[in-house]
Amino acid sequence: MDSGKPVISAFNWVPDLAKGRVRDLRVRWAFEEVGQPYDTVLFNAGQPRGEDYLHWQPFDQVPALRDGNVEMFESGAILLRIAEKSGKLLPEDEQSRWQAISWLIAALNTIDPVLGMLSWVAFFNADKDWSANAAKDTRPFASQRLQRVSDALDGKDWLASEFSIADIGMVTAFLNADETLVDEIPRLAAYRDRAMARPAYKRALDAQLADFT
Amino acid sequence: MDSGKPVISAFNWVPDLAKGRVRDLRVRWAFEEVGQPYDTVLFNAGQPRGEDYLHWQPFDQVPALRDGNVEMFESGAILLRIAEKSGKLLPEDEQSRWQAISWLIAALNTIDPVLGMLSWVAFFNADKDWSANAAKDTRPFASQRLQRVSDALDGKDWLASEFSIADIGMVTAFLNADETLVDEIPRLAAYRDRAMARPAYKRALDAQLADFT
Repeated sequence: MDSGKPVISAFNWVPDLAKGRVRDLRVRWAFEEVGQPYDTVLFNAGQPRGEDYLHWQPFDQVPALRDGNVEMFESGAILLRIAEKSGKLLPEDEQSRWQAISWLIAALNTIDPVLGMLSWVAFFNADKDWSANAAKDTRPFASQRLQRVSDALDGKDWLASEFSIADIGMVTAFLNADETLVDEIPRLAAYRDRAMARPAYKRALDAQLADFT
Repeated sequence: MDSGKPVISAFNWVPDLAKGRVRDLRVRWAFEEVGQPYDTVLFNAGQPRGEDYLHWQPFDQVPALRDGNVEMFESGAILLRIAEKSGKLLPEDEQSRWQAISWLIAALNTIDPVLGMLSWVAFFNADKDWSANAAKDTRPFASQRLQRVSDALDGKDWLASEFSIADIGMVTAFLNADETLVDEIPRLAAYRDRAMARPAYKRALDAQLADFT
């Protein structure tokens, strides 16, 4: 039953605009960073995954993880699992470790939500009469939050004392919204580009794209 | 320098509607559950906290935590810290533990964001001409996500195998939006009420309210 390799769920079809942005990218990136091979179970994003899948991933999203005796979901939680199991991607020093976890949660609960909100009003509801004005009022709020991340990166390459799951969480959160938001903040754009230049990111992105058939 | 007790930041003034909903409630609740006394440093929500505070909490939000040698932020991250340090509020069994962490992250990254989005369009922008229509189109999306949480609670009292930081994260996420959203889903409302009937929740709420002067 158990190949020894962890298995994640991902998509074999998504709309073009979602390619390279689906949340399994986070998990693939972390696996690549720690050198852990993994398998995928693929679904079509345009079709419901069915009752069985909901027992694995209660929101019918990807990714979910099956790893030995553990089944779990939420890309952010899976990042914590990969770090704990591998002993990598979190600093060892207690203060640095909790800074990294703070920043991971900030990516998930302070940055992702405002960028997702902007995408919701500006992109997913682009056909509604309220969309343009809502986007105009929402964009500055999202930009302010991103500016805080940039401020915290002053003099630093990474959010914590070394590259960690916080950076994987943050840079993939940026993919939630129109990239010009980040482009407008030079230090933040440089941080994103530094992270995306990592070979593990490129391998993860290639692997996600290769699974779309 | 160190009283031995952890210190969290919180507010001594917020607008009336925020009372009982500020995010330090999460952390106070967890401290009460594990029997850990704590101190507070209080700020006025209506005034910027200043440069020094940004080194502790980069988004100028509350709560942040100072605990021995550790300084950190994000209520969800602090919940993980309290569970790890106390050895409570997370199941011991590996699968149940990761289920609890999955649900904590779902509260932060799947539920909180859609409820926050609805509050953003319906409440924080209530004076805008686009608000009412945006709220009408956003509310069903938030309700669907909540329905998934309710489905997962079928036959269960708590999200994981026992009461955990996942439940603290989820029930406090509900406070992000108009409570009728949860009221409309009977199993979810019963779950929320069961959690809020815990003595530790009541002590935490009283403590937050008592700090408003």
